[in-house]
Amino acid sequence: MAAGRPLRVTVWNENVHERRDPSVKRIYPDGMHAPIVEGLRRELGGGVSARVATLEQPEHGLSEEALAETDVLTWWGHAAHDQVDDEVVQRVHARVLDGMGIVVLHSGHYSKIFKRLMGTTCALRWRSDPGGEREVIWTVNPAHPIAAGIPQPIVVPHQEMYGEFFDIPPPGELIFISSYEGGEVFRSGCCYQRGAGRMFYFGSGDQEFPVYHQTDIQRVIANAVAWCGWTAKVNDLPSARQGKSQRNWYM
Amino acid sequence: MAAGRPLRVTVWNENVHERRDPSVKRIYPDGMHAPIVEGLRRELGGGVSARVATLEQPEHGLSEEALAETDVLTWWGHAAHDQVDDEVVQRVHARVLDGMGIVVLHSGHYSKIFKRLMGTTCALRWRSDPGGEREVIWTVNPAHPIAAGIPQPIVVPHQEMYGEFFDIPPPGELIFISSYEGGEVFRSGCCYQRGAGRMFYFGSGDQEFPVYHQTDIQRVIANAVAWCGWTAKVNDLPSARQGKSQRNWYM
Amino acid sequence: MAAGRPLRVTVWNENVHERRDPSVKRIYPDGMHAPIVEGLRRELGGGVSARVATLEQPEHGLSEEALAETDVLTWWGHAAHDQVDDEVVQRVHARVLDGMGIVVLHSGHYSKIFKRLMGTTCALRWRSDPGGEREVIWTVNPAHPIAAGIPQPIVVPHQEMYGEFFDIPPPGELIFISSYEGGEVFRSGCCYQRGAGRMFYFGSGDQEFPVYHQTDIQRVIANAVAWCGWTAKVNDLPSARQGKSQRNWYM
Amino acid sequence: MAAGRPLRVTVWNENVHERRDPSVKRIYPDGMHAPIVEGLRRELGGGVSARVATLEQPEHGLSEEALAETDVLTWWGHAAHDQVDDEVVQRVHARVLDGMGIVVLHSGHYSKIFKRLMGTTCALRWRSDPGGEREVIWTVNPAHPIAAGIPQPIVVPHQEMYGEFFDIPPPGELIFISSYEGGEVFRSGCCYQRGAGRMFYFGSGDQEFPVYHQTDIQRVIANAVAWCGWTAKVNDLPSARQGKSQRNWYM
Repeated sequence: MAAGRPLRVTVWNENVHERRDPSVKRIYPDGMHAPIVEGLRRELGGGVSARVATLEQPEHGLSEEALAETDVLTWWGHAAHDQVDDEVVQRVHARVLDGMGIVVLHSGHYSKIFKRLMGTTCALRWRSDPGGEREVIWTVNPAHPIAAGIPQPIVVPHQEMYGEFFDIPPPGELIFISSYEGGEVFRSGCCYQRGAGRMFYFGSGDQEFPVYHQTDIQRVIANAVAWCGWTAKVNDLPSARQGKSQRNWYM
Repeated sequence: MAAGRPLRVTVWNENVHERRDPSVKRIYPDGMHAPIVEGLRRELGGGVSARVATLEQPEHGLSEEALAETDVLTWWGHAAHDQVDDEVVQRVHARVLDGMGIVVLHSGHYSKIFKRLMGTTCALRWRSDPGGEREVIWTVNPAHPIAAGIPQPIVVPHQEMYGEFFDIPPPGELIFISSYEGGEVFRSGCCYQRGAGRMFYFGSGDQEFPVYHQTDIQRVIANAVAWCGWTAKVNDLPSARQGKSQRNWYM
Repeated sequence: MAAGRPLRVTVWNENVHERRDPSVKRIYPDGMHAPIVEGLRRELGGGVSARVATLEQPEHGLSEEALAETDVLTWWGHAAHDQVDDEVVQRVHARVLDGMGIVVLHSGHYSKIFKRLMGTTCALRWRSDPGGEREVIWTVNPAHPIAAGIPQPIVVPHQEMYGEFFDIPPPGELIFISSYEGGEVFRSGCCYQRGAGRMFYFGSGDQEFPVYHQTDIQRVIANAVAWCGWTAKVNDLPSARQGKSQRNWYM
Repeated sequence: MAAGRPLRVTVWNENVHERRDPSVKRIYPDGMHAPIVEGLRRELGGGVSARVATLEQPEHGLSEEALAETDVLTWWGHAAHDQVDDEVVQRVHARVLDGMGIVVLHSGHYSKIFKRLMGTTCALRWRSDPGGEREVIWTVNPAHPIAAGIPQPIVVPHQEMYGEFFDIPPPGELIFISSYEGGEVFRSGCCYQRGAGRMFYFGSGDQEFPVYHQTDIQRVIANAVAWCGWTAKVNDLPSARQGKSQRNWYM
């Protein structure tokens, strides 16, 4: 089954903080997308073909053609959610329902595409003290491919706090729950099915801390990409067809 | 807990077919909302206070004030989904996330508010032969309040066929599954939590057949209204608050 | 709907620690069941009729007759899980599937009845340092009746740590997640439907700390009892019937 | 990840009807396990290594050693559920929670292992008229690997009727719903996570009809085996560990 070609991943990054804020540039001199791509290549090897797309590109690098050749899209945005074109959002949305996987990262919880797919405010509790605070990420579903090879727990030494109540639909499968030094908790690894597509939200990853350089975090993202991409690669999805039907469809 | 006041329900009806199509006018001379309201009153008695709102009213009868005094909204629409004002949709959406219940009926699956809350296309397979066909509605969760007092199964003699794949997020709780004479199946009773609100989709109820005059169907709707309204009545929802948080929130 | 009679609750307590261990006797001189019953009466008033049953009684106070007149059973056990008679467990199990609600508390996660209903090991991570540690209980589903009137968060100053991975089936609805001073998290409020019955597991409540004297904790238990008992009170459950069926069942 | 070795599958068959009943022997001269194994080999090719185990073998062919080398177990039983040794059931149960996948077929709904994993009665509505009746299997989750390459719908011309209410825990993911000529519906494709293991129940497959010779049905089983086996193959499951924990686990 579809053993053949590699999974085609588009790593989308707003790429604003990295060029504007010295503190972020220091951590991610080549953009946050760089260690994400690096992690995908290390974990998935020849099984993945990754490209980068950013906000400043024409159509944000997400033209019809680009999306048609994308099995999984990863999304990081924060400072410029409003600058993402509504038509591109509509296009990504349709493509997800049509079978493309999507992995939304950290502050992407407030992106247009995430809010549209979720149907809720996607608001949460947060706190960003200088220096951040320790996040501890616990697996609550060890049978899930996204948890494969992930230590129990992952410790992120410095992180912005994201806490409950996180206004999302209850996830189809809950994989990770995080705690923070302040005592908060957060559903930080959430799987969804939407139409013929699969979606994963992962909470960790503030721009002020080197989270995406952490091997375990890279592995979570790679696992999520592989999980979300399964459908896009192998399924011609006759089962997703709808519309007017004859009485004797089965003859 | 909130035993005091009755549940305030707004029964919203597009009210287009009933005034335009003789075949529908014959079945629902006072509008489809009439038997729905009647059923609520019979099943919930003094526990409910119901009002009607329709498309042709100013703001479709769904002003800020009207919604603020609504615990549960029921929604039937079909011919005029596009005529529903986007601002009103936005208002209803926000109110649901804030705790108002919503019960979406039949062709309301293609309404703006349903698609917005679901985040999917909400497309389905369908067939409307003259005379319709038998729908059989089976309870798959007998522990749920919406199934209380409902026969196993409900038989609707004449109905439009709605079938899978129905492009909705997998329901939080699945209560009913229908079969049709043609052999199709449909997830026809689906519960969701969105924000602080509860939502129920119920598939039965085409305008060409007297489905809403059927006692069992009225009971399903009354049960759904009671279930969705629970939160709106009793919960001041401190747990739903979000935003910036101090480290020592708990002191 | 069943407004009439009060909800009949049996508060079951192993009642071993309270009579054997001075440290526990000091906190719960009348048994842990006493503040639980007190909380039910304060929160549910005339809506509840509560009785106590304990391990040392004949049939553990859970005869056929007693269960037939119980709408919801609450369960606390720890030191003597093995002394609970298998026949009584079988009886409780059948009664739950038949519509009785059950609320399992804290160390009840290792009781025979909980393991039987869950089908898993129900093992968890734990730590009981002298003096315990702070537990913080967060609501992740503010639309749920069990969260009604519950502060965000509840703080339990001293508690035994229960952490993930907690080997339970993914809950039908997840209501609470706790964090502990050590950084662990725990799915501490879990709803299930089993057969025609409803079930809630609540993690808080070690015998060495006065957790059940805490008003907020009592309210959670009262809310859970009300939620689990709904079905037992109102549903005659024709929809739960099974067995051999005729082709023309619907005529 | 674990691309290396093939998935090790044990196809378990009660193998009673095939040797006792001429009508069954005619359809399955080499046992029902034969076409199941054949389908696995055709669909998964070199990715699978399948062996057969049956009731009459010592320890039913499910010794500690055999299970230790099994990634996924498929289970068909009907006439002799009671003859399955409790110790073997206990062993299979522990192995599933430890990460082995299990696919339970048709009348296996009443097997000891299924009831133990589910925690419910697993009763259902049924009818077995001579000649059976048409079953139509609809996909309700086209994003799921188990639905890959499956036509919408699958038609099984002759089948025993299995209908709701089916007393199982609500599935983690619902993949297929069937309808029958009599108008009944059945949740016929159900995914579960239990402990570190994955489980799939598939309703189709009575011994009196050549269901397991049908290519589409074989593909469903192969897809299910691949889905359930994922975890067993790749996950060393550090995240599933439990027990007493130190305060500074993370140092």
